[in-house]
Amino acid sequence: MTGYIEVFGHGGDVETAASRFGGNATDFLDYSANINPLGPPREVMETLLQGMHAVLRYPDPGHRAFKALLSERLAVTQEQISVGNGAAESMALILLGLAPRRVGTVEPGFSEYGALARQFGAEVVHAMGREELNWRARPEDIERLMEEVDLLFLGQPNNPNGVQYPLEVLHRLARKAEDSDTVLVIDEAFIDFIPAARRQSLASDVNKYPNIIIIRSMTKFYAIPGLRLGYAMGNAKYIRAMTQKQVTWSVNGLALAAGEACMRSGERYEQETIEQIAKERARLITALDAYGCSVTPGEANFLLVHVPEPWTAASMQEALGRRGVLIRSCAMYPGLGAGHVRFAVKEPRANERLLEVLGSVLAAGEPQHLKGASTY
Amino acid sequence: MTGYIEVFGHGGDVETAASRFGGNATDFLDYSANINPLGPPREVMETLLQGMHAVLRYPDPGHRAFKALLSERLAVTQEQISVGNGAAESMALILLGLAPRRVGTVEPGFSEYGALARQFGAEVVHAMGREELNWRARPEDIERLMEEVDLLFLGQPNNPNGVQYPLEVLHRLARKAEDSDTVLVIDEAFIDFIPAARRQSLASDVNKYPNIIIIRSMTKFYAIPGLRLGYAMGNAKYIRAMTQKQVTWSVNGLALAAGEACMRSGERYEQETIEQIAKERARLITALDAYGCSVTPGEANFLLVHVPEPWTAASMQEALGRRGVLIRSCAMYPGLGAGHVRFAVKEPRANERLLEVLGSVLAAGEPQHLKGASTY
Repeated sequence: MTGYIEVFGHGGDVETAASRFGGNATDFLDYSANINPLGPPREVMETLLQGMHAVLRYPDPGHRAFKALLSERLAVTQEQISVGNGAAESMALILLGLAPRRVGTVEPGFSEYGALARQFGAEVVHAMGREELNWRARPEDIERLMEEVDLLFLGQPNNPNGVQYPLEVLHRLARKAEDSDTVLVIDEAFIDFIPAARRQSLASDVNKYPNIIIIRSMTKFYAIPGLRLGYAMGNAKYIRAMTQKQVTWSVNGLALAAGEACMRSGERYEQETIEQIAKERARLITALDAYGCSVTPGEANFLLVHVPEPWTAASMQEALGRRGVLIRSCAMYPGLGAGHVRFAVKEPRANERLLEVLGSVLAAGEPQHLKGASTY
Repeated sequence: MTGYIEVFGHGGDVETAASRFGGNATDFLDYSANINPLGPPREVMETLLQGMHAVLRYPDPGHRAFKALLSERLAVTQEQISVGNGAAESMALILLGLAPRRVGTVEPGFSEYGALARQFGAEVVHAMGREELNWRARPEDIERLMEEVDLLFLGQPNNPNGVQYPLEVLHRLARKAEDSDTVLVIDEAFIDFIPAARRQSLASDVNKYPNIIIIRSMTKFYAIPGLRLGYAMGNAKYIRAMTQKQVTWSVNGLALAAGEACMRSGERYEQETIEQIAKERARLITALDAYGCSVTPGEANFLLVHVPEPWTAASMQEALGRRGVLIRSCAMYPGLGAGHVRFAVKEPRANERLLEVLGSVLAAGEPQHLKGASTY
């Protein structure tokens, strides 16, 4: 009964949670995966239900309809876009297509960057984020790392701390990428959750900087992680190299249909999501502070939290898990401590339930005591 | 208006067909992709419609529920099974995981074998099928090739000719694989369409032969090409190497749910499919013979056909395409000629329509004449 449940290295693994904590996999209140609590736009569910016959046909291997919509929306050419079977495949295709020998990461960060790089034969070196910078790395440390590597991954906002690098730092790093002949991969998987005015993004500068690639996920903001859909944009030379490594029909037909529907869904869904997340994040921060937790002031739809001692990520994950609430332990992230966990920001009712369960667990006493009890 | 429409190297590309021949992509009667004409089992569509909420959750990265059902059905351990995002991903994972330097193929055969092998850096060498053997290669030619390569792909039944190698040849090749330290990959993507008593398969011998991997597709028999689902089974050592190269969540949640439903669907659907395909294939062969086509006597749910001169694959594809019927040109397969095409075997009404359109095209005269007409 000990050890974290992130046996696959990620949150959202309700199957493992169910076998560890009991209950049905689908009954957990899942705070370990960071998915839009509004669920998919209405247009997406309608498209899926009415367009189920898409399963009967091979998907378009050229992703043409979806790419045309993306191209229009992002103001880049279709040759600058690669559609992926989830953002994770986009990362893999970058590594397969560009074949960097040395890959840089900034820790703590999304574990797939390093895992995929090693998986495809690269050596991985990292720069460390600093607690006083809310787990950002200093720009000069990232620049130094860029001199050593062929390719560097940067999360913007970064997972698990949820903070962004300021735009001027991104411009500086993009220039450094060119100077040092390094590819800078900026993972914007969660950037859609940040109000447009606050987003720090080089998305409109992909023509200006030949050495950057931007990755986006459709999975999180549009709440379709089960379907798998993401994309990368950047220099057409990189995109071609990625496409050459992609397995035919890798992106399934329902994901493409859903992606097209997402592009057609209006701004209202986007605005509603952003407003609700901002409001609920503020509420969670206040309440978690009051519980004695220490919260990193991130801007994304999740929060990096240090639970009050003597609680640890492991004991808190187990205590909440046994009460049907699944959270992400962050104790295994390089640089973070045994007490770090990550909570998603969800809808009001779910957040009330989280705070209620968390409050009762904290009030009931210390984890050692709880673990000694025969039933919990 | 010239050139084949297989711009991605495969059939089923109704988008390219629509832009070349006019009309809506979804309105084509598609004889170029080989999908079960019965459509998915009832259980699968019910699962998809009722289980649409699966899009809201990350798929199980361990594919545990589906793998458990496969393991039971196939009588192999879960450690001997790798689930893929379509059989195409299973092929890619074999190449990425085992990293063969030289890969062998038998031509004519499924073009992805060689394309993927080159894509992942291997050199490709081939043995040739012989017309007098219905485009099978001689066993001794395959054995000779195995001595030269680290890994060999064999289609069983082979695409595009639809013929099987006899079981004794497979045993001989499996032994040769062991002796020559070669991995023999047998692609059984279409084997489910063949009556069980006639199937020539080493599926029950994976424990006997350490050097074979069998690939299966769920896409074709269960009519879910849009969802992507396949698997490989074989030596646990190979399966582990494949899993290490797989991108997390590569297999989407609806595909897994559909796959589980396929395993629960009864034998009746399988029997009905097999019986209908056998009956309709026989009817098509008789009618195509009468039209002056030369048909390779395959056993799968598709037929390799040589159209009567002066028709070519290109002119026939265009003539039928303009009438809303999409066929697969096979002129680009090594060893085949300019007049080779492939027809799927579909349901009775569709087959009647195919024969009707084909008959009227053949009766209307020679392709040169037709191409000169301003409307067609």
